[in-house]
Amino acid sequence: MTQTSAKRQPEGAQDADLTSSGLEHKIAEQGMSNGHSKGHSFTNGVATNGHSTSKIAEIDASKLVVHLADPTLREVPDEATACSGLETICTDHMVTCAWTAASGWAAPEVKPYGPLSLMPTASVLHYATECFEGLKCYRGFDGKLRLFRPDLNANRMLMSTLRISLPGFNPKELEKLIATLVALDGPKWLPRSRPGSYLYLRPAIIGTHPQLGVQAPRQALLFITASFMPRMDAPVGGMKLHTSPEDMVRAWVGGFGYAKVGANYGPSLLATQEAKARGFGQILWLYGPQGECTEAGASNFFVVWKAKDTGKIQLVTAPLDDRLILDGVTRRSIVELAKDRLAGEVEVVERKYTIDEVLEADSEGRLVEAFAAGTAYFVCPVSLIHHRGKDVEIPMGKKGDSGEYTAQIKTWLMDIMYGREQHKWGMVIDEDTP
Amino acid sequence: MTQTSAKRQPEGAQDADLTSSGLEHKIAEQGMSNGHSKGHSFTNGVATNGHSTSKIAEIDASKLVVHLADPTLREVPDEATACSGLETICTDHMVTCAWTAASGWAAPEVKPYGPLSLMPTASVLHYATECFEGLKCYRGFDGKLRLFRPDLNANRMLMSTLRISLPGFNPKELEKLIATLVALDGPKWLPRSRPGSYLYLRPAIIGTHPQLGVQAPRQALLFITASFMPRMDAPVGGMKLHTSPEDMVRAWVGGFGYAKVGANYGPSLLATQEAKARGFGQILWLYGPQGECTEAGASNFFVVWKAKDTGKIQLVTAPLDDRLILDGVTRRSIVELAKDRLAGEVEVVERKYTIDEVLEADSEGRLVEAFAAGTAYFVCPVSLIHHRGKDVEIPMGKKGDSGEYTAQIKTWLMDIMYGREQHKWGMVIDEDTP
Repeated sequence: MTQTSAKRQPEGAQDADLTSSGLEHKIAEQGMSNGHSKGHSFTNGVATNGHSTSKIAEIDASKLVVHLADPTLREVPDEATACSGLETICTDHMVTCAWTAASGWAAPEVKPYGPLSLMPTASVLHYATECFEGLKCYRGFDGKLRLFRPDLNANRMLMSTLRISLPGFNPKELEKLIATLVALDGPKWLPRSRPGSYLYLRPAIIGTHPQLGVQAPRQALLFITASFMPRMDAPVGGMKLHTSPEDMVRAWVGGFGYAKVGANYGPSLLATQEAKARGFGQILWLYGPQGECTEAGASNFFVVWKAKDTGKIQLVTAPLDDRLILDGVTRRSIVELAKDRLAGEVEVVERKYTIDEVLEADSEGRLVEAFAAGTAYFVCPVSLIHHRGKDVEIPMGKKGDSGEYTAQIKTWLMDIMYGREQHKWGMVIDEDTP
Repeated sequence: MTQTSAKRQPEGAQDADLTSSGLEHKIAEQGMSNGHSKGHSFTNGVATNGHSTSKIAEIDASKLVVHLADPTLREVPDEATACSGLETICTDHMVTCAWTAASGWAAPEVKPYGPLSLMPTASVLHYATECFEGLKCYRGFDGKLRLFRPDLNANRMLMSTLRISLPGFNPKELEKLIATLVALDGPKWLPRSRPGSYLYLRPAIIGTHPQLGVQAPRQALLFITASFMPRMDAPVGGMKLHTSPEDMVRAWVGGFGYAKVGANYGPSLLATQEAKARGFGQILWLYGPQGECTEAGASNFFVVWKAKDTGKIQLVTAPLDDRLILDGVTRRSIVELAKDRLAGEVEVVERKYTIDEVLEADSEGRLVEAFAAGTAYFVCPVSLIHHRGKDVEIPMGKKGDSGEYTAQIKTWLMDIMYGREQHKWGMVIDEDTP
């Protein structure tokens, strides 16, 4: 037994954190020298230490190349029509930005929305080298266009792209590109005549490298689309959840449940589809032998209950520290708002809690309400949890459409998103004049 | 607490196997009425019960539509040139077959190899709705073209596609389509003047449905390419493995480690890249608190040692029963050959074994050899395992290039693949005359 292998750190301790080390090295080699995400919790410990070791190009929104679509070619459908078909309706334009390991990021482009051309050997089609974000732009009741905390999405996308071995970038530049697309297509596709409406923005990065070996891609593409997305925050009778089966675990400690990578979604579809066929809206994903509640579908999950010991009202949600769940923008905003505005009335608790605790709270009459929270489902009241043959019915308020805390939190968020309340979280977009 | 939710089975037991139930229902709805995979272990308990409930179309290789490429446009590079670039070189043609939930599979097509057109909203680019297979076709020393046990790949692909919520198909038809591509491009791209060579075949299915909701895709595409792939079975000095870090688990019980889906690959690249930067070839993936040895990179892993209790020579590899590892065709073939041809000399053992058992065997001088086994790496001798600061050197035979059992098994397999031994596992392909 001798030490022979090359280029290795001698310390045994180094062997236990290969993934973290890999992240650090990727950041260094991509020369991200501006410390943009330093100390930001979305990066989950990714250090951006300011030491640039390479001259390959960063994403630079100021180099944007614009190819405009003919705006008369497509009409804007009404919301119901747009969401009724089998295809997502996107706006006139998309943003793309190509990357190679040799040269870094090319100049970003605005171009007419249309298909991507990928070789059949492209990495993304075989190895799930892909990550994405989801956020919305809102047409305010004051006539203005807004994004909601896009910096959080941009920072999270940096963490996701590095976790899945795709290229890093400066999140501030991604924010600018998102804003550019909204400024360009917002006036037509989210007109002032539709206050209280939104478009869904989907930035994604995919590995385009056409080589079949299992390896980190050396070519990638960032693209951003803006599209209609149906409202899902108020299903009739509330959202009904089915707890996850024993033969399906969504994410696990040491895995990648905290990153917004494709690999968290495809494998969950089978059980979700089966739950939907049985009349449920989403799966409540449990973790571990104790059945810790983690996420509801692709959303974060909150319970309001009276604490067993003190009887105080608590807003409870799973913690981020073991990296099982997504650090949701809506989740984070709810936690922050509730701590600020419900102080003294409601305790906000981020901790592990099990399905048995929920069942016990129900049987003791301590369950107050529950909701799912995320960009797609926004704040969606949960009316029922089905677990191993038992139904837990959850109070849905006096009118039967939402618990009162759920409704209050939702109103606060909407007021910020749609400009009824001027707030630092609402980023106003200057629109291009058509 | 009352029973209100719709269309639900009352039994609590049903709740624990949502994924299995989902598989059963998908098979039923896809009307796969021919029982093609019944009782086949690659389907991991997927029952094909012969009850067709639908009239949507199956893949039908007899409906193949052929659009030939101009064969004079591209020359066949030599193997070294073909494998030297950043892109995988494919042959003149590919096979594609489109599917929709409404109509089933369209007529398969042979067409010139070229890019795929996908909408930016395509499911595969966001949610990793993708699965694939890898197999090779071999130019035999007897001049014939052969596939090696393609039925196993086709059956496994059925299991993978259903696990990732993509459409099912009759594996026999997939086999025919693979054979068609080999028969068409084999004569030119794997000429008789290159006996002992191979091409790599890559069937894949992707979700093409252009809708951003997290849902099972209602449109999909099967495609098959044939390409060069470098030989990786004899790295100088043997393959060096680095055990997986504590911050990265490849697969987990209740997950999808047994299916050949993209979601198993992308997330593993980061740690693998870091290990390669430190001078190692692949990661030896450990599982659980005891550190069970599961896979080596994207290959199965075998150890030959003298048993602690009896002193007998054992060929040991991880078991399939907890669905952590891929049911490899090479793995299975090695197990079967060794049981048959090494009976009395070597015990073949499929069981859980830990890295500590390997370390102990090393320290007691009982470690005989080790190798990785899969289609890409074929049978690749392992010379070193690095674990938490310690190196375990593994004997590499008298000539230093391979242990003797490793070499023997490899020779047996090559003899079948390249027609030195006529064997039922070698499926001869009738070639099209150019």
